[in-house]
Amino acid sequence: MKLRCSGLLLALLLPVLSPAQSGPAITRVNPTNWWVGMKNPNVQLLVYGPQAGTLTYTITYPGVKLVKTNSVDNPNYAFLDLGIAATAKPGKVQIVGKKGGLTITRTWELRARTASPKGQGVTDADFIYLAMPDRFANGDPSNDKFADMADPNMDRANPFFRHGGDLQGAAQHIGYLKDLGVTAVWFTPVLENNQPLTNEGGTMRAAYHGYGFTDQYNVDQRLGGNAAYKSFVDQAHAAGLKVVQDAVYNHVGQNHWILQDLPMKSWLHQWPTYTNTSYKQQPITDPYAAQLDKKVMLDGWFVPFLPDLNQQNPYVANYLIENAIWSVENFGVDAWRIDTYMYNDQPFMNRCNAALLAEYPRIHIFGESAVSNVVDQAYYVRNKVAFPFKSNQPGGLDFVLEGGLLGALKDVGKPEATSWDGGPQRVYQALAQDALYQDPTKLVTFLDNHDHNRYLSEVGEDFDKYKIGLTWLLTTRGIPSMYYGTEILMKNFKDPTDAEVRRDFPGGWPADKENKFTAAGRSAKENEAFDFVKKLATYRRDHQVLHSGKLMQYLPENGLYAYFRYDATGTVLVATNATDKAASLPTARFAERMAGFTKARNVLTGETIGSLTTLQLPAKTALVLELLK
Amino acid sequence: MKLRCSGLLLALLLPVLSPAQSGPAITRVNPTNWWVGMKNPNVQLLVYGPQAGTLTYTITYPGVKLVKTNSVDNPNYAFLDLGIAATAKPGKVQIVGKKGGLTITRTWELRARTASPKGQGVTDADFIYLAMPDRFANGDPSNDKFADMADPNMDRANPFFRHGGDLQGAAQHIGYLKDLGVTAVWFTPVLENNQPLTNEGGTMRAAYHGYGFTDQYNVDQRLGGNAAYKSFVDQAHAAGLKVVQDAVYNHVGQNHWILQDLPMKSWLHQWPTYTNTSYKQQPITDPYAAQLDKKVMLDGWFVPFLPDLNQQNPYVANYLIENAIWSVENFGVDAWRIDTYMYNDQPFMNRCNAALLAEYPRIHIFGESAVSNVVDQAYYVRNKVAFPFKSNQPGGLDFVLEGGLLGALKDVGKPEATSWDGGPQRVYQALAQDALYQDPTKLVTFLDNHDHNRYLSEVGEDFDKYKIGLTWLLTTRGIPSMYYGTEILMKNFKDPTDAEVRRDFPGGWPADKENKFTAAGRSAKENEAFDFVKKLATYRRDHQVLHSGKLMQYLPENGLYAYFRYDATGTVLVATNATDKAASLPTARFAERMAGFTKARNVLTGETIGSLTTLQLPAKTALVLELLK
Repeated sequence: MKLRCSGLLLALLLPVLSPAQSGPAITRVNPTNWWVGMKNPNVQLLVYGPQAGTLTYTITYPGVKLVKTNSVDNPNYAFLDLGIAATAKPGKVQIVGKKGGLTITRTWELRARTASPKGQGVTDADFIYLAMPDRFANGDPSNDKFADMADPNMDRANPFFRHGGDLQGAAQHIGYLKDLGVTAVWFTPVLENNQPLTNEGGTMRAAYHGYGFTDQYNVDQRLGGNAAYKSFVDQAHAAGLKVVQDAVYNHVGQNHWILQDLPMKSWLHQWPTYTNTSYKQQPITDPYAAQLDKKVMLDGWFVPFLPDLNQQNPYVANYLIENAIWSVENFGVDAWRIDTYMYNDQPFMNRCNAALLAEYPRIHIFGESAVSNVVDQAYYVRNKVAFPFKSNQPGGLDFVLEGGLLGALKDVGKPEATSWDGGPQRVYQALAQDALYQDPTKLVTFLDNHDHNRYLSEVGEDFDKYKIGLTWLLTTRGIPSMYYGTEILMKNFKDPTDAEVRRDFPGGWPADKENKFTAAGRSAKENEAFDFVKKLATYRRDHQVLHSGKLMQYLPENGLYAYFRYDATGTVLVATNATDKAASLPTARFAERMAGFTKARNVLTGETIGSLTTLQLPAKTALVLELLK
Repeated sequence: MKLRCSGLLLALLLPVLSPAQSGPAITRVNPTNWWVGMKNPNVQLLVYGPQAGTLTYTITYPGVKLVKTNSVDNPNYAFLDLGIAATAKPGKVQIVGKKGGLTITRTWELRARTASPKGQGVTDADFIYLAMPDRFANGDPSNDKFADMADPNMDRANPFFRHGGDLQGAAQHIGYLKDLGVTAVWFTPVLENNQPLTNEGGTMRAAYHGYGFTDQYNVDQRLGGNAAYKSFVDQAHAAGLKVVQDAVYNHVGQNHWILQDLPMKSWLHQWPTYTNTSYKQQPITDPYAAQLDKKVMLDGWFVPFLPDLNQQNPYVANYLIENAIWSVENFGVDAWRIDTYMYNDQPFMNRCNAALLAEYPRIHIFGESAVSNVVDQAYYVRNKVAFPFKSNQPGGLDFVLEGGLLGALKDVGKPEATSWDGGPQRVYQALAQDALYQDPTKLVTFLDNHDHNRYLSEVGEDFDKYKIGLTWLLTTRGIPSMYYGTEILMKNFKDPTDAEVRRDFPGGWPADKENKFTAAGRSAKENEAFDFVKKLATYRRDHQVLHSGKLMQYLPENGLYAYFRYDATGTVLVATNATDKAASLPTARFAERMAGFTKARNVLTGETIGSLTTLQLPAKTALVLELLK
């Protein structure tokens, strides 16, 4: 049964038999394969096909035990609980289903684990580059569109259509990213999004962004499929880059294959009438919240065409968790970014995080919880608050600091820059609330992303502000991430549509007249921006003090904000003048960090500053000074 | 030595001998008396007089042991550690000091504890009325001024001068407060403020507000002295009102007697040059703070004429803690409001709080920490955050909720009332962060105070807003407090001076032409305001559900905000329409709290609402509905 894109029809989403069955069959097994030697010996196989749930299953393979066959409402599904002993060898496992005189055999592979890197994690030694594969570079024009897909079109002139970018294209620019100083790449989701392009009363619903999965075991063929993804990861690893996968657990695309024939009604969050999430996180942490407000937040649908998964259903939970592990093991990705984190069932998220960390102890996990205050942000990561529910998520995207950074930058050069709570106070105060986190250095920091106005536009296309914000991003605590194109001054607001902030990277397509992947293709200003990011990112990459060095920040005074990163290897002072006039900054206040240092090197200009007694700060500037004895 | 009101002279604050001593003497002993039967058997007496520190002390009194005599830098002080056994009887203790052939004897009294109420606490069953005694009512014109005081003037025409209000005047209006529905009175500090009135370059420095103590063992004689305070407390208790004392530990007035002859340099926070506090609380909770920023915050002076006490000095700590206990025991006060709480040494505050709670387990303690976010507010009360330092303070003034309430009210009737984070969302979101507190019901809530713009002015003199805010204050969680005059529509901004928000209560002086303590003296609008507060406060007073009933709040939608207070005795729904248009509010969403109720009584109008399916909410109105079966 096709799920129609309307809440009014949800009550019809009861399991039904496929019409006119000719007999039992197995058409799918998920996970599509597994590995021997995993820490967790258990796997639950989803076996699908006409009347697949009515078969009696046996598996005869050394070290593999079929512990239990689970039937569900829909007879087209069986869920097989397997135990895989440590002694099991790689090979082809025959899944045998019998019914009456009929025997159906399906081959399912147990592979050997490879020694190639996987789950390496990202840390504060990294600098993450976020790109949208459809909009970054087109390396293989042959996969731009497929006539048999729900959206068979490709048209770069239309912001809602596929543009043809792919993983091969991205791989061709690994050198560019390396040159920029990037150490990790995060793509918006690469899994299959065989979703339609619809026009609902003038509102276009597109899936080029990748957040509506239709099959978690296939990378979208327009991006190059599984092979291209694996190839990208291998090439990235070979170049010393890590790869972050963007995962979505909260929902799937309405064309997800399972939705065409649900295992059971409770696979999804079903409502009597269509119910959207409130997008309001407060009921989750509010001690006074009503049950209904919590339920709407968690179980309401993100949008009508992204049905909401019920992760309290153990089959759904197993399905998602195993896919996460499969993805890391199969493709070798290093870190895990989780979309719409706060909309998920949180006990499920803890199970999922624990499962990933059990197999990949160094993997980093950072979810997207778009909140506006530190209490709510802390709730979704390991924290120091005795909340009734305790998250085990190691990291998270730092929306609170993004707010502080952008708020501060808006005040730069204005009277607000020196006001009581304005200007750099906004950054200072955001960081000062880090006391709620177990480890704020694991938060992923950012200035914008694919859902926000582009950074350059947010700061009014003011290049001074642009540099200050990037300086803060690349020198303060946390794991910095940057949205593609920031380094070449891509700009735009997300009104009228998100597509405005997701424009193609110029030069990513063979026919492009401009190629901003090369210095020659960039304007002077774009090269200034690129070189600025490169200079800072490279310095950061090569200096441990900007990774794991401690942070000490001083109360901003008169619009001047000074903070230090320091460890046994060195001390870096970042001194910002957020006002529109040159300023002198006496450093006596900073003796706790500056004692013993007599001069400094300006990291951005290379010049030496011979006396540190009073620093001269140009208007609207952040200096990065490596202190010297 | 006189402490001059300038930081430049602080280095001179070394102990010096009084000139031309004729011989040792004891002129003061603090505490001025003590009691038998206290939980803590130890008391440290400060003994002061010329060469008092050079005497050899003995005490011969059954059950009283002089454990140790402590000398300090200044020979005019001795600190005697006494142990008072449970068997000790009330009586006159002779403190005998000898030096050579000289014997000096000072009588010091151990009293029996009275059975009169003390340390009763304030809880969410209370409604606190905050008044400034000098500006509330003048019951005894004979004590308006004293020629031998540092400020010998009284002039009601001058906002900085004393106006003559006193505790006898306040006592005369206990009936008024009872009639209003008040259950507790909190005066700005009543202790002696023998401070000068100065004019520093056009800036007047006055002490009528009471926050610059010059002797913690005397109530200011212009307020009537110790006797008048004791009498006020007794009359209040007789009328069923509780009394909150406003305590100041952080600093004293520059005319404090001890400052004229410091026991040791470290009695105060001494700086090489005058250093003001930054007034910025962030360095205290910031994990990245510099030591100097913390030190300036804590040890910097609040203003130049209020020298900052060093509570890490154990003699200072003992002096302050014992004065706190002495005050409760002597006057019988019920709760303890602590000024400038966050500027105090926090381990000291914990000791002080613990000492008070040990003697008076029901006493309530709530400090003033004027912060702007819940992390900082939580730090200063018992909380659920693993901060490096854990406060034991039971309550605190709720500045975060004040911000939410006023922010919401500013949006009422405007487009912001329905915006994503505006209007009632500001109240909702402030409360939703209560997860950080151990017990948010112990926070004292308010709409303004003597340091803020008056509430009516903050809401633009909009009577609809005025009523909504008071409704929220008197029906949501916490212990509500109200600043004097709010009930008669007193208004003003604190610019140009604080005195604007501290005007005399009309009718408090015999010569006043208007007497707003009486219905006849109030205008129709003032009576409407008075009656509104009275109606709500009285309903609150008489209905346990608005004290200890649980709170459940629903996400505001479209500018409509509904919350419930509920317990076994009943359910009250507060439904606010923050928009400028009448609105219908379907209640199906609220089934978790409304199931079983069929009608309601409008608490403010008395009318019955026969159907609860959809509530009709007039524009800019908060309904208080007692739900009925």
